[in-house]
Amino acid sequence: MTTQELVAQIHAKQSFLCIGLDVDLNKIPKHLLDKEDPIFEFNKAIIDATHHLAVAYKPNTAFYEAYGINGWKSLEKTINYLNANYPEIFTIADAKRGDIGNTSTMYAKAFFEDLAFDSVTIAPYMGKDSVEPFLAFKNKHTILLALTSNQGAFDFQTKDVEGKELYKQVLEVSKSYKNSENLMYVVGATKAEFIGEIRKIIPDSFLLVPGVGAQGGNLQEVCKYGLNDQVGLLINSSRGIIYASDGIDYAEAAANKALELQKQMEDILK
Amino acid sequence: MTTQELVAQIHAKQSFLCIGLDVDLNKIPKHLLDKEDPIFEFNKAIIDATHHLAVAYKPNTAFYEAYGINGWKSLEKTINYLNANYPEIFTIADAKRGDIGNTSTMYAKAFFEDLAFDSVTIAPYMGKDSVEPFLAFKNKHTILLALTSNQGAFDFQTKDVEGKELYKQVLEVSKSYKNSENLMYVVGATKAEFIGEIRKIIPDSFLLVPGVGAQGGNLQEVCKYGLNDQVGLLINSSRGIIYASDGIDYAEAAANKALELQKQMEDILK
Repeated sequence: MTTQELVAQIHAKQSFLCIGLDVDLNKIPKHLLDKEDPIFEFNKAIIDATHHLAVAYKPNTAFYEAYGINGWKSLEKTINYLNANYPEIFTIADAKRGDIGNTSTMYAKAFFEDLAFDSVTIAPYMGKDSVEPFLAFKNKHTILLALTSNQGAFDFQTKDVEGKELYKQVLEVSKSYKNSENLMYVVGATKAEFIGEIRKIIPDSFLLVPGVGAQGGNLQEVCKYGLNDQVGLLINSSRGIIYASDGIDYAEAAANKALELQKQMEDILK
Repeated sequence: MTTQELVAQIHAKQSFLCIGLDVDLNKIPKHLLDKEDPIFEFNKAIIDATHHLAVAYKPNTAFYEAYGINGWKSLEKTINYLNANYPEIFTIADAKRGDIGNTSTMYAKAFFEDLAFDSVTIAPYMGKDSVEPFLAFKNKHTILLALTSNQGAFDFQTKDVEGKELYKQVLEVSKSYKNSENLMYVVGATKAEFIGEIRKIIPDSFLLVPGVGAQGGNLQEVCKYGLNDQVGLLINSSRGIIYASDGIDYAEAAANKALELQKQMEDILK
């Protein structure tokens, strides 16, 4: 998917909501556990109930890998279902991968070709040759971790590196990577006050912003600092939407939570 | 597996060799491609031919994920085969994972419980709460990326962070993590001259050292700086061993290459 198509979808839906499909069998409604593939059944219902309110879905691969081959099958069925039924949706494999060059190429094939996601999240620690293999894929997007939403972000990301915080070095250095126009960045909503500084370095890039909802981030604060001419934000909510109810009304409850956020986004876009 | 069991195995085999099972269908012998599961057949033959010369095997998950569900099945069969037939072997899932706390717990379950690996490689960028969920597993080992073997390591890892290179900060800070006795570290063989400095910070920890062979690292140099009282090194070779021949003699050729390295290690241990 091109960035232009993503921006067009945002304007059409008046939403820049991304829904995180982090499915834990201990948290989904009990009646689904009798199904052949409870994780896919859950995702399908959530997607069908919310696809008009969200522009992106983001399965986190950890929640699928934890269930082994069955989990990987659920992930494959979920991305295939999205691509077949809602081709306008921007899909994100939240995988946080990164390895030496020939190995990163294998990861890129896994997520861009085998699973046909539009984008994948990548950790920057191993540098240029761990990221560029992903950037080589046309109309695919590489979402680099910059400033994450967790407390551990302060261990290294905000430390001063030659006069500038590490996450700013990541932003700066990554701009010199080949095909850097295919980069987006992860910036946690819990660090909204940092986004103004981030926008000075990467004014035009899309930011994937987790941490609104369960982790305590504030939508209005993020938008105040983060919006740009192309909107430039994808705001993710996972647990706050998908676990809104653990009863048979779970999909409807998720849609209601998504609608609340979409309405706030519509107001912001006006 | 406990560290003591690993050290005992090293002394028994006079080897601290780790074999990387990075299986690419374009590189394995053509006659295997007719088999139902060529990747597992390849791994099984390599393991059977080399298990007395190596103390650890390290499948890199990228090479399995690239083949989707079939690849994940091959990975599962490989680790099950190792655990069932060679329980003394130390197994490493080279996955380079890392995410916020509840998500890292899911990754830890995937690799330590579902797949039953002894250890997993982890990226440090997201800090403490992304690493500690792995450390919580008893007799499991978390191998943190410190200084990697690739050129991109110089993008961030060797940059000065408050008076000390980032990789040294990672070593220092990680020592304060809960259950840090379960940590090992990745240090590339191509950076052997750095290992002396690394040993000042973590004298007792095991280092997983990739980059000997195809990437150009030197075994003697690594050992000169890296050996400690418990040996403290696992030297990985992947392509240099497993692709020693692409004919029907591939397993024998791999064993010959592994024997060369084992003999060098035996000399070093004397």
